[in-house]
Amino acid sequence: MNASLRHSREGGNPWTPAFAGVTTVGRNNALLKRIEVLLCLLALSVCGLVHAEDGHELWLRYPKLSGELAAQLERHAVSYWVSGNFFPTFMLARQELERGVGAMAGRPLKYDPFSANADGSIGLTVGGDRGLAEFGHSEVLLQGDGFALYAVTRNGHHQLVVWAKTHVGLLYGTFELLRQFQTNPHIDQLALVSNPATQLRMLDHWDNLDGKIERGYAGRSIFDWWRLPDYVDPRLTDYARANASIGINGIVLNNVNANARVLTHDYLLKVAAIAKVMEPWGIKVYLSARFSAPKEIGGLNTADPLDPQVRKWWQDKTDEIYNTVLNFGGFLVKANSEGQPGPGDYGRTHADGANMLAAALARHHGVVMWRAFVYSDVNPEDRAKQAYSEFKPLDGKFADNVLVQVKNGAIDFQPREPFHPLFGAMPKTPLMPELQITKEYLGFATHLVYLGKLFEEVLQADTYAHGAGSTVAKIADGSLEHHALTGIAGVANIGSDRDWSGSDFNQANWYAFGRLAWNPYDSSERIVREWLAQTFSADPAFIEQATQIMLRSREAAVDYMTPLGLAHQMGTGHHYGPAPWVNDQKRPEWNPVYYNRADANGIGFDRTATGSDALAQYFPQAAAQWADVNTIDDKYLLWFHHVPWQHKLKNGQTVWQALIDHYDHGVAEVEAMQQQWEGLQSYVDAERHDKTKRFLQIQRNEAQWWRDASIAYFQSVSKLPLPAGVRPPEHDLGYYQALRFPDAP
Amino acid sequence: MNASLRHSREGGNPWTPAFAGVTTVGRNNALLKRIEVLLCLLALSVCGLVHAEDGHELWLRYPKLSGELAAQLERHAVSYWVSGNFFPTFMLARQELERGVGAMAGRPLKYDPFSANADGSIGLTVGGDRGLAEFGHSEVLLQGDGFALYAVTRNGHHQLVVWAKTHVGLLYGTFELLRQFQTNPHIDQLALVSNPATQLRMLDHWDNLDGKIERGYAGRSIFDWWRLPDYVDPRLTDYARANASIGINGIVLNNVNANARVLTHDYLLKVAAIAKVMEPWGIKVYLSARFSAPKEIGGLNTADPLDPQVRKWWQDKTDEIYNTVLNFGGFLVKANSEGQPGPGDYGRTHADGANMLAAALARHHGVVMWRAFVYSDVNPEDRAKQAYSEFKPLDGKFADNVLVQVKNGAIDFQPREPFHPLFGAMPKTPLMPELQITKEYLGFATHLVYLGKLFEEVLQADTYAHGAGSTVAKIADGSLEHHALTGIAGVANIGSDRDWSGSDFNQANWYAFGRLAWNPYDSSERIVREWLAQTFSADPAFIEQATQIMLRSREAAVDYMTPLGLAHQMGTGHHYGPAPWVNDQKRPEWNPVYYNRADANGIGFDRTATGSDALAQYFPQAAAQWADVNTIDDKYLLWFHHVPWQHKLKNGQTVWQALIDHYDHGVAEVEAMQQQWEGLQSYVDAERHDKTKRFLQIQRNEAQWWRDASIAYFQSVSKLPLPAGVRPPEHDLGYYQALRFPDAP
Repeated sequence: MNASLRHSREGGNPWTPAFAGVTTVGRNNALLKRIEVLLCLLALSVCGLVHAEDGHELWLRYPKLSGELAAQLERHAVSYWVSGNFFPTFMLARQELERGVGAMAGRPLKYDPFSANADGSIGLTVGGDRGLAEFGHSEVLLQGDGFALYAVTRNGHHQLVVWAKTHVGLLYGTFELLRQFQTNPHIDQLALVSNPATQLRMLDHWDNLDGKIERGYAGRSIFDWWRLPDYVDPRLTDYARANASIGINGIVLNNVNANARVLTHDYLLKVAAIAKVMEPWGIKVYLSARFSAPKEIGGLNTADPLDPQVRKWWQDKTDEIYNTVLNFGGFLVKANSEGQPGPGDYGRTHADGANMLAAALARHHGVVMWRAFVYSDVNPEDRAKQAYSEFKPLDGKFADNVLVQVKNGAIDFQPREPFHPLFGAMPKTPLMPELQITKEYLGFATHLVYLGKLFEEVLQADTYAHGAGSTVAKIADGSLEHHALTGIAGVANIGSDRDWSGSDFNQANWYAFGRLAWNPYDSSERIVREWLAQTFSADPAFIEQATQIMLRSREAAVDYMTPLGLAHQMGTGHHYGPAPWVNDQKRPEWNPVYYNRADANGIGFDRTATGSDALAQYFPQAAAQWADVNTIDDKYLLWFHHVPWQHKLKNGQTVWQALIDHYDHGVAEVEAMQQQWEGLQSYVDAERHDKTKRFLQIQRNEAQWWRDASIAYFQSVSKLPLPAGVRPPEHDLGYYQALRFPDAP
Repeated sequence: MNASLRHSREGGNPWTPAFAGVTTVGRNNALLKRIEVLLCLLALSVCGLVHAEDGHELWLRYPKLSGELAAQLERHAVSYWVSGNFFPTFMLARQELERGVGAMAGRPLKYDPFSANADGSIGLTVGGDRGLAEFGHSEVLLQGDGFALYAVTRNGHHQLVVWAKTHVGLLYGTFELLRQFQTNPHIDQLALVSNPATQLRMLDHWDNLDGKIERGYAGRSIFDWWRLPDYVDPRLTDYARANASIGINGIVLNNVNANARVLTHDYLLKVAAIAKVMEPWGIKVYLSARFSAPKEIGGLNTADPLDPQVRKWWQDKTDEIYNTVLNFGGFLVKANSEGQPGPGDYGRTHADGANMLAAALARHHGVVMWRAFVYSDVNPEDRAKQAYSEFKPLDGKFADNVLVQVKNGAIDFQPREPFHPLFGAMPKTPLMPELQITKEYLGFATHLVYLGKLFEEVLQADTYAHGAGSTVAKIADGSLEHHALTGIAGVANIGSDRDWSGSDFNQANWYAFGRLAWNPYDSSERIVREWLAQTFSADPAFIEQATQIMLRSREAAVDYMTPLGLAHQMGTGHHYGPAPWVNDQKRPEWNPVYYNRADANGIGFDRTATGSDALAQYFPQAAAQWADVNTIDDKYLLWFHHVPWQHKLKNGQTVWQALIDHYDHGVAEVEAMQQQWEGLQSYVDAERHDKTKRFLQIQRNEAQWWRDASIAYFQSVSKLPLPAGVRPPEHDLGYYQALRFPDAP
């Protein structure tokens, strides 16, 4: 199946000559429609402004409100007062308030110091001057960059006030107030205290120094290293603002497969220029450090972390960074994994490596985020077990300013994985979940897959480390083991594309990541509704339908790609499309067959005691829910068990039937999403509606391709007939196996 | 010298902590200024629209006019009538008129069929209905897609009318009328007939299928092959419109170093989707064809152009293309050059290769553009002579639908070269000049270099093929040898960057190319003024100063890079920065020393009879002006002569003195451009002013680097002291030689 090909076939013969009688009706209609759209644009262009609905404004559009929300805003869109000073971050908060309220109300919000004694005014207050206590609220509720929003009555005057202890907190609170205006019709009862649950809310950019993004599907890097530091793209300010609006406070600028050159002085000056833009928005910058940098750019002949010269080199380099870069946060390291250098090259442990960098950073209060994503070139152990095997013994051996960064699952950002067994298994070490926002294994930019559901599933997963309720969220926020140093990382989906993320709906994944990093107990559905209201329309009918589309989208992708606990069935290298048959890769765990283990007898990876026993890495109560092939939740079945094709699921279907059923359901779900989107045309501007519509068509075609190719392959192995009524794959297996995608991103 | 490094040093210590007393005044000022700018933006955002001045609108901004231009427009911005039908291109012309006049007048222009009998109205008329004859003008003046603009009086009503014979001509005329409103205060005396001098006005994109652009400095390709044909970026429409506004009517979609895959059916469907967008704007699409495609994607074991199977394969492939792609134009071919396959691989000539493709295209009226940019891996002949040696004997052997595409100079898009000796030397063959708009050898995107001057110099160069006045322009437009098939190609500087071309001023080079392709006799200065008025400000004081900046810019670049006829002194591979010392490349002609031939005795390439005698490839009258070392124009001296360091120029300076003088002058010119730009702040929005200012600072730093590194090298060879008062290079030669740019684009 070639998606493009099919699409074009359905779309009519592209060769039809233009304007030659009846055959061109469709074409002329399309053109007239385009002209119509352009004439609409003309109305705007008359005042000199053409406003393309290209998604660039993200969720910060501040549309003019209507209905009850407008009436409510009307009462408050008059004037505001402040208590604070003119620090830049404070000014950014004021500016955002003016911009947001002004745009939504359609008239300027005035700064008026005397409005503290006026009805309806808005107050921004930071520090102790006009504290919460005055209104009977306790300031101790506020932590770090948290904020409070209250509807209060001062001297008989009803007002809305944003309180924070820090300037960044005030900025966050201001963004929250602007969200409230767009989503909360009862703002005059507002009493909200919101504190960040995690300390490091981090976007990891896998951006290379030449501008290419590893696993990037939204254009080139937004970091224009070539022209930095002499020219700093204003777009970086937009990017910082978007991050601040959802509480993100750290960014790693470069790929974990790191180039040592980023640590040279010339590059540090470029890093400094970026950091300077980020700083007033409360964002620290971090770098991925290549472990062998002392050899590559330091002129040493070793990178052994216990070598005094190496330690001195890193200390000097770290001092240089802090002398050069404002608000530097620390290092992210991928070591001894997929060919990257690391302490293992010198017979040292990950702790040895991390602690050396931690020592260099300590005097500057910097941190090391050391990735646990490791699997060896030579280790025959189940790949799902290797990180645990290597890191668990190191628990308690890491310095205080080290976090171990653990991917949500034990393999690699699959559509679904059970939570990583390291969660809960390293009580003495702060663990930082690493989520992937860019959709490497989820159809790239063009599939609509709302990852909030995936993130929520991981965060709410129960490790049972200290009995029931020991969720991953509690590990992320440090509450389970009482860690002060905490964080969550997301691998960014941001690039130079005008819409930032390769599609309008991918923006929701960036947004949901930020909201969940702030509060890992938040609901993915609540977040969807909030995002939709700001991004498209606050109309309840729209929100209802669009929420359904988004909430069903992730399970749809699981169904058409890797149902029932399958994983890593994607094409070699690029991870585009289905390739469950691939078995010719050098390392066993690079082959999809390694994961599906489909043969004439059955399918699935036995990770119970009779197999790799990866199950034993989980706490007993967690393991218990998966150990029994008859009681395990279907969605993890083939992750943990190898079962006969005729194995009966709880619903009475055989695995063979259920597998096909899930593939079909995945395709049907995308078709349902298409239909729902079609019905929302009146709520969304033409440009964004059309783009999503076209992407959904690509997704539908590719879902079908996944379904057909997977069924064709598994049938070639199971030798079973298709159940009655099941449509056979469009092509034979050889067709799918022959497809190549040399230009895949 | 490292530009970034120096810049940061000058810019102050980036480590200065924020907001800590007196040292932060600058920082806070900068921030307050940023806030000010943002507060200004707020005024706009109140109506829900923030209008970033990011250069995206190019020269099609249609600013609200003021002064006498506004008063004049006022009289005509009432209503318009049309004579024509509803063909899409005709509708685009109407739409553009409404958009442009509407925006500039600040109120909608109304379509009113009865306004043909009203004062002040505008008429768009195509075909014969209301012909030129009615007003005493002859229609025979109009050719092809030409147009006429007249201020006329109809039944006593004064009107402006655009006439054309074709819809595309009407579109061109409409764009011209909109230009006239912005630049001509005497529009009521308008009587203008404009016909395209060349038939193919072509942009060559060197874009790869993975989105990377060879020699691209403005982001990724605008052709998003991955998502085509299912999703067609609306930006392609903006691109087509911009091209149409300056008369460009053909685009080659892919790199001349071609990938055969673009000819597979899947890719042709993508090409078809692009072509569909281009068609109503009068733009044909072309493809670069890889000569070995019959082997690579056709399953043949040869690509011999005389092999019947090969010929059939190309015929079938060409038929398939025309059956798939609307408005396809033909092939561009780079063959047997820099490792590309070609007919020479089978002992055949370029004519054999071109004619095979021409035969396949003939029934579809397609053309072959066969590039003369060839130099052999093994030929020891002066590289400047090889194209002539290989192609001149083939004159008269090419099929009727073949053009030979000849770079402006005999080497490769240098800051200055004498015109290519093939111009005039192949009277029986249509020659198509190939110019480079992207600045591969001219500082990439960040140097302000207006290439209109370079293009004009080439087009006005006299080949003396038929005596004085046998200019390259006359070869381009076919008038010299009476060719009907004519064209000019420009290698595009267009990418996904918001400003399209990597800087606001690079847009002028795209613009100037289009204008000169339409009329190769046009003046680069006139074009500058026209472009500036549309792009920045029509204020005469601004135009005066900014024109000076642009007109001096190209000579400045020649001076700081390659004065006195030097060429190809750039860094290996990327062509960034100076590297006159490089002598370690495999092929002699890949080394800058090959071109400068500097030694203890002197400098320059002897291309007279005592040397390579490349001079003999020119017509005697042309050669005569360069043959004598004492009378040759200084700017070509070292291109044609090897002279002692103490050789006296006409102004009395030695070559050694003059060389240094030119380098210094180049730097001084950039500094003067900086100063002039600084003075134009009040005419230009802050965003674009600041961006250009920063780019000029980069250019200044790099000009200095060129000057210093070049002087350091040539002094190491000449062993001469620096003339009195000359500042020595900032670093020693070793410093410059050690600089590496692994991340250069």
